[in-house]
Amino acid sequence: MKKVIIVGGGFAGLNVAKHLKNRNDVEVIIFDSNNYHLFQPLLYQVAMAGLDPADIANPLRTIFSGVTNIKIYLATVLEIKKEESIVVSDFGDFHFDYLVIATGSTTHYFGNNHWTEHTLPLKTLKDARNIRNKILTSLEEAEKTTNSELKRKYLTFVIIGGGPTGVELAGSLAEMCRYTMAKDFKNINTKDAKIILLEKAPFIMGAYHKNLSKKANISLKKLGVEVKTDVNVLNIENELVKTDKGDINASTIIWTAGVKPTDLGEKSSLQTNKKGQIIVEKDLSVKDWPNVYVAGDIAYVEQNNKPLPGIAPVAMQEGIYIAKAILSRINNKELKPFKYANRGQMATIGRNKAIAEMGKVRLSGSIAWISWIFIHIYYLTGFKNKIVVMFQWAWSYFTYRKGSRIILK
Amino acid sequence: MKKVIIVGGGFAGLNVAKHLKNRNDVEVIIFDSNNYHLFQPLLYQVAMAGLDPADIANPLRTIFSGVTNIKIYLATVLEIKKEESIVVSDFGDFHFDYLVIATGSTTHYFGNNHWTEHTLPLKTLKDARNIRNKILTSLEEAEKTTNSELKRKYLTFVIIGGGPTGVELAGSLAEMCRYTMAKDFKNINTKDAKIILLEKAPFIMGAYHKNLSKKANISLKKLGVEVKTDVNVLNIENELVKTDKGDINASTIIWTAGVKPTDLGEKSSLQTNKKGQIIVEKDLSVKDWPNVYVAGDIAYVEQNNKPLPGIAPVAMQEGIYIAKAILSRINNKELKPFKYANRGQMATIGRNKAIAEMGKVRLSGSIAWISWIFIHIYYLTGFKNKIVVMFQWAWSYFTYRKGSRIILK
Repeated sequence: MKKVIIVGGGFAGLNVAKHLKNRNDVEVIIFDSNNYHLFQPLLYQVAMAGLDPADIANPLRTIFSGVTNIKIYLATVLEIKKEESIVVSDFGDFHFDYLVIATGSTTHYFGNNHWTEHTLPLKTLKDARNIRNKILTSLEEAEKTTNSELKRKYLTFVIIGGGPTGVELAGSLAEMCRYTMAKDFKNINTKDAKIILLEKAPFIMGAYHKNLSKKANISLKKLGVEVKTDVNVLNIENELVKTDKGDINASTIIWTAGVKPTDLGEKSSLQTNKKGQIIVEKDLSVKDWPNVYVAGDIAYVEQNNKPLPGIAPVAMQEGIYIAKAILSRINNKELKPFKYANRGQMATIGRNKAIAEMGKVRLSGSIAWISWIFIHIYYLTGFKNKIVVMFQWAWSYFTYRKGSRIILK
Repeated sequence: MKKVIIVGGGFAGLNVAKHLKNRNDVEVIIFDSNNYHLFQPLLYQVAMAGLDPADIANPLRTIFSGVTNIKIYLATVLEIKKEESIVVSDFGDFHFDYLVIATGSTTHYFGNNHWTEHTLPLKTLKDARNIRNKILTSLEEAEKTTNSELKRKYLTFVIIGGGPTGVELAGSLAEMCRYTMAKDFKNINTKDAKIILLEKAPFIMGAYHKNLSKKANISLKKLGVEVKTDVNVLNIENELVKTDKGDINASTIIWTAGVKPTDLGEKSSLQTNKKGQIIVEKDLSVKDWPNVYVAGDIAYVEQNNKPLPGIAPVAMQEGIYIAKAILSRINNKELKPFKYANRGQMATIGRNKAIAEMGKVRLSGSIAWISWIFIHIYYLTGFKNKIVVMFQWAWSYFTYRKGSRIILK
């Protein structure tokens, strides 16, 4: 009976575990500092009051209920002693025969750590709740104040970073102000809210074909979002963003401009690239430590001389591959190197507005939006969550309402 | 145009506002320190991971969206200057022609304020989330520890107070340990969890007929709850309850043994009873201050020489009456004194287990349980919440699962 330890229950770790469950040749332990698997692609909808935290978070114990060979520990892994094949956790040491490091990434401020005090990141459920509370509270404060300068500040929302998260937040916030809340306030008009999306590069959605990037830009502008590209953020202070194109006063400043890998690789003296990602072999194991595998955002994997992006499909495929690799090793079988099958990417901007790219096929508008919905429902973990999310979306679509507009401190 | 100010958006305040909406003879302001109306009777299900906070909390702005004559302020009312007809809030003073005080009640420790540090109350959404986090975390800790004494402490849950909230919590927790989580842990058996319900009186559910109280007791015992009546809590320390029948070590101690009215009456020098409830006239106005009405848990109302209990139906009927009273006054019409129509009371203990009392009709078991479900869905605010809660209940019923088992700090 071989012992497999998986650190992290995200897309990568979850898929390793799913493909090792109920076997009698491996014993699995999953470590995670949260008791749930989080469906990150819909996190922005929790931030925007469209979904509840529990709609996109499935308890690991529910997912593996009744599974005979998987133990789950709600704990933090501090270090890997690779020479001794030991995982050091905050409640004791554990020996492994095979290890999977899949601890993901966190928000990155590129050395400007004091910006954390003035901005809201979006990487965890807590982050999502903080953004929701801040946006809803700002609107409440705007309704109360009679000072027009203050009112303007409360009604200005800056989102830094024009990648998928920034674009999805901006589109969703614009719709909330335009439709959802249009009749809810008396002293303010939420349609007057200023939503500003800042991007350093000349294009938003840089990972997409230029035509789609342009379409996303047009869609956002139609919703009233001010999209500002080629803008360098110089400094962020309390309720103030300083850029090379001028300063912006805003009570809400959201930061989606960067992620960095978690630091378990560095803490465990594994070889990392300059970003901090652990460098792996073609079978996703670490050089000289063939029993240590790495997957997801913390792994540095190249394909066709390009690094694989930190997105859910990559992490899922890596996880499945590692489960197979471990079983092949145990059974002395050969396995081909890992190969990522790129099935495309997609992002939603608003009602009937999305962009999607599958090889040379590029979609936008309603078709992309409907595809986006079905793919996300399909991959969402848990039957109950699929139904509840579908209902919430249908309800929001027809009523223009948001299901979860409560401020919970 | 008369100005009506309502302080508090609970069952009482909400019903005043609903019956004054879209009229052109009154202008209404609602003050609440939360941005939502909370459906208190289902709060224990949020604590027990069965429902999400947003399922039982409906934003006041959503409820009154598009209503022409109601303003809502997310603010705290500090004092009433009744001589000047002014409400003092944390962001300014507001004049009123009619005032409704409906600020409800909070948890009461009968002078033992240091017990707050060692126990978990259940009165707000935050309280519910704290209880959920504590119970789920205790089970996770029990799974991790190898110290059997610690394990026992993590698996012991004490609930103090055998009223409806305590009974509903105990029954729900017992079911969670017996069914929901039975296959989820490896190092512990959740069926071994000790759930102890402590009650000072000789009977739990003292407000019900003795036969129903006995039935509730039997149902709880069948679920494995240790029901201990005639027990005086002498002191509560960290993870320790001292009673006249012995000490209990438990990492989770829940307090549902008392509520007291909020202090707006005392702060505003209105006449209160020794509990702190504001004493009102037969039309629910305050003596000498006929423009000031009081409703819900903070009002002391007698009927047939008995005080009305602090429950949702009383608050709702009082709210509706006050709206009518204000309109009658404006239009110089007479209105009969307030009379509470008692339609009965009910509480649920577990799957197919509930008790209900309507006059001399007493129900228990499945019939009471099904009635309980339909009545609660009927009164739950908001169409979306009705559907989502019904689905969550149906799903839990058939799968024995809980929909919201995430630890969110």
